[in-house]
Amino acid sequence: MKKWIFLMMTLMATVGTNAQKSESGVAAHIIAMEKAALDKWGNGNPDGFLDISAPDVVYFDPFVEKRLDGIDQLRALYNSIRGQVHIDRYELLNPKVQAGATMAVLTFNFNGYQKEVVHKWNCTEVYRLEKDGSWKIIQTHWSLVLPKLQ
Amino acid sequence: MKKWIFLMMTLMATVGTNAQKSESGVAAHIIAMEKAALDKWGNGNPDGFLDISAPDVVYFDPFVEKRLDGIDQLRALYNSIRGQVHIDRYELLNPKVQAGATMAVLTFNFNGYQKEVVHKWNCTEVYRLEKDGSWKIIQTHWSLVLPKLQ
Repeated sequence: MKKWIFLMMTLMATVGTNAQKSESGVAAHIIAMEKAALDKWGNGNPDGFLDISAPDVVYFDPFVEKRLDGIDQLRALYNSIRGQVHIDRYELLNPKVQAGATMAVLTFNFNGYQKEVVHKWNCTEVYRLEKDGSWKIIQTHWSLVLPKLQ
Repeated sequence: MKKWIFLMMTLMATVGTNAQKSESGVAAHIIAMEKAALDKWGNGNPDGFLDISAPDVVYFDPFVEKRLDGIDQLRALYNSIRGQVHIDRYELLNPKVQAGATMAVLTFNFNGYQKEVVHKWNCTEVYRLEKDGSWKIIQTHWSLVLPKLQ
């Protein structure tokens, strides 16, 4: 019985240490995923985001009237603008990841440049660790910074 | 050893069942927290949100130029409009909670009524289960639905 207790304690200690170690690793991994998807997005290709979104993803942006629910609704939206988005360059500002064991929220400000015009956005992405070990987006929220209202 | 294995399996089965059972309980609990805070908010009192926000909360709304980081920045913003927000009534539409063991994301559309004028919002709240057993907001994102741009 002592052996079992020892094994359990060793396991718990290992899990704890790995959790601490892995938080910065998770942050770096998620930010890299987001940048890779944004690189495709800026060239009119939404597949980067579709490939890393979960079946139950929910989505907000300023131009949809209410939350989109599920990957089919998101795919329909993205396909409707496929090839139409062109960003010359972008800045992903102050990315922050708040991570739990199986979920993580990434927030950042985003400046997208089209020639000399800059479009400023707020973004919140919630990622979830799936059973196959991959991280997938379950919530996306894009909004305009200081929109100039009528 | 057989007894230990049996105990472990019973424990794991119980944890699994509780996790399934508790997901709807977590959703109901979090939606109730949000509504209680909104009820105060609509009467000019931001303390409902401040009381349930974690020290490391991050925050977006359309009128701040970049993400706010931490409860002190959020408190400063809320205190600057304390007593100035008055909502006659509101609708919290299609609230959805996607919950993990220690984090949950709540999304909804929100209609706030001031006399006959309706203001339409998107909202994402990320809640985290704290060590004391309470759920706290670690991320808030409010944005306007279909803003009429200049």
